Amino acid sequence: MIYNPVKVHFGKDVVSKLGKAATPLGKKALLVYGKGSVKRNGAYDQTVAALREGGVEIVEFDGIKSNPVIEDVDKAAALGRSENVDMVVAVGGGSVIDSAKYIAISIPVDHSGWEFAIGDKKPSEALPLIAVLTLAATGTEMNAVAVVQSDKEKKKVGNGHPLMFPKHSFLDPSFTRSVPENYTAYGVVDLVAHALEGWFGDGDATLTDKFILSIIREAMEYGPALMKDPENYQLRAKIMFAATMALNGLTAQGKKSGDWGTHGIGHAMSVLWDIPHGASLSIAFPAWMKLQKERIPERLIKLGEGLFGISDPDETIRRLEEFFSSLNSPLKISDMDAPTGPAAKEELLEVMRINKVSGFCHELSEEDHRVLVDSMM
Amino acid sequence: MIYNPVKVHFGKDVVSKLGKAATPLGKKALLVYGKGSVKRNGAYDQTVAALREGGVEIVEFDGIKSNPVIEDVDKAAALGRSENVDMVVAVGGGSVIDSAKYIAISIPVDHSGWEFAIGDKKPSEALPLIAVLTLAATGTEMNAVAVVQSDKEKKKVGNGHPLMFPKHSFLDPSFTRSVPENYTAYGVVDLVAHALEGWFGDGDATLTDKFILSIIREAMEYGPALMKDPENYQLRAKIMFAATMALNGLTAQGKKSGDWGTHGIGHAMSVLWDIPHGASLSIAFPAWMKLQKERIPERLIKLGEGLFGISDPDETIRRLEEFFSSLNSPLKISDMDAPTGPAAKEELLEVMRINKVSGFCHELSEEDHRVLVDSMM
Repeated sequence: MIYNPVKVHFGKDVVSKLGKAATPLGKKALLVYGKGSVKRNGAYDQTVAALREGGVEIVEFDGIKSNPVIEDVDKAAALGRSENVDMVVAVGGGSVIDSAKYIAISIPVDHSGWEFAIGDKKPSEALPLIAVLTLAATGTEMNAVAVVQSDKEKKKVGNGHPLMFPKHSFLDPSFTRSVPENYTAYGVVDLVAHALEGWFGDGDATLTDKFILSIIREAMEYGPALMKDPENYQLRAKIMFAATMALNGLTAQGKKSGDWGTHGIGHAMSVLWDIPHGASLSIAFPAWMKLQKERIPERLIKLGEGLFGISDPDETIRRLEEFFSSLNSPLKISDMDAPTGPAAKEELLEVMRINKVSGFCHELSEEDHRVLVDSMM
Repeated sequence: MIYNPVKVHFGKDVVSKLGKAATPLGKKALLVYGKGSVKRNGAYDQTVAALREGGVEIVEFDGIKSNPVIEDVDKAAALGRSENVDMVVAVGGGSVIDSAKYIAISIPVDHSGWEFAIGDKKPSEALPLIAVLTLAATGTEMNAVAVVQSDKEKKKVGNGHPLMFPKHSFLDPSFTRSVPENYTAYGVVDLVAHALEGWFGDGDATLTDKFILSIIREAMEYGPALMKDPENYQLRAKIMFAATMALNGLTAQGKKSGDWGTHGIGHAMSVLWDIPHGASLSIAFPAWMKLQKERIPERLIKLGEGLFGISDPDETIRRLEEFFSSLNSPLKISDMDAPTGPAAKEELLEVMRINKVSGFCHELSEEDHRVLVDSMM
């Protein structure tokens, strides 16, 4: 089924409309944010002002970290429960909004959000969620999926449910101007990786494939330009919009599913060494493609033709690596602040095993894990 | 705002899920359809069976004609009101579903649906609407807009409101196999025309432009193939999906609006001589582009580059005409069953004047009308 009920408000100063959206949802909001960057880029102030204007009382929960952890979700849900809030308002990037999705379904229940994340329980109700996005990357602002990790269990999992759609998402590209260079790049990588996961999904969906190529081409056209001109509102807007389109269902239409094996590889790196999500994907995708190119040559040939007008898969992978490098996103684990010796390799393999890293369409064996890790180190 | 809450169920035998969707909406449905083709292609039987399975009682209103008239909307609404129905179920193409949208907002009120159509009144409630689509063309199955005409006033108008979104739309490409050759072609033209109206809209929206080109390319790749192999389910599915994407909001994102001037020209032909909507558009779009090519050369150059890898606007228009011709869709009014003498010309100009035919982005003067009509005759 094609279904996406999120109301996306896009453009400069669009948060001024948030109060009007919040008023019908209740009297008291749990305002969730991260380590404080939203206080520097104006998103926090504008959101608080809009909520007050809408007559909505605010309870705050801050400190959500990137690669968000379930402990914070549970603490925030406990606060929301005891304060009897009517809605959740998330201000931040993917980590904050993903956490808020689990918080919104955890407040009405008496167990940890982790049970939703690992699929042991399904939500039957949710508090309404409003998202104010400050980072162009994950697409969470327009979908019903969220990723969270448990450090204790060394697991990072993504799960979703229609109750996890935000009611409203406010996207003002100005907020992303203050995103540091590396996270700007990781956001571009992330959106391209989302489009690629769709590309390597199952199903004959020629128009969806054209949409996917459109999104990747947009990122290739304007991503590097943005790195050179990070204050440019128009470029920020183009990348923010492309990131939303890359994971709002558009790239999955007519497909049984995307593959998502590469995301599993990236999650393993993130949970182990706290490598930023986007960075883990510019490392993992080339390795994954090298592993798969003999198995699914046709998809790699069509990708190269669609993006570069070339049909050699090796050259296509090389050009994608070149693109990631042009953004200064890493191609190897050794480019990041992470250990790379034989012990580290075994540790990563262990986390991949615990997380059963594989794709929905292209399975990965433990032997494949070893080839991938060798290729990424 | 980007917002589209329609639940689109796509695929073979998908109507079997309709009962489950209808049950929560009430106990009694007004079943709206046209002149009976839905009884031959299986859509009627499957819908009735699904409603019965869902425990929903049925009241029928049939006879909606293509280029639907407000009189039928009002009769159907009166029936729905007196029968106290809980929902409207439309089985058919754009005419039936558009009529059903006005019926669903007219049942709760005591005035003609025409007041909604011409914008004199705005709806404040609507009965839930389920659509079962049997013709790939207008995109009405996934938007909140509907077109209806008043023969008395010689007006054909399109209007919309968020309450006019269908709750569910069921798209089984098999139903479209029985669509005659000419209407299959008109559907392809219609979807291309919708994409083009977006293309000629206002606003710097590079990714949306890429999506628009994707949709037109898909129609050019698979439309002519479908004409040669009309029983082919996969081709029927591709065109049906492309038609839905061409007018569900995707081609308007980041734009102030589409242009819609060409649709105005086409509507004038339809209201006057009952020319099928798609046919009117393969006549009107080349004429409109010839009129506009000196005024907006850049849009025509980019269109040619994107579709054909050429930059000469004349050649781009010629290739589009060639494409419409390859579908056997008309390029001139004289190709249709319509008068073409000087009196007919004046009559068409009069209807264009009454309907204030113009674009949202590119205005059309009465002098422009004359140039257009000369070009189309």
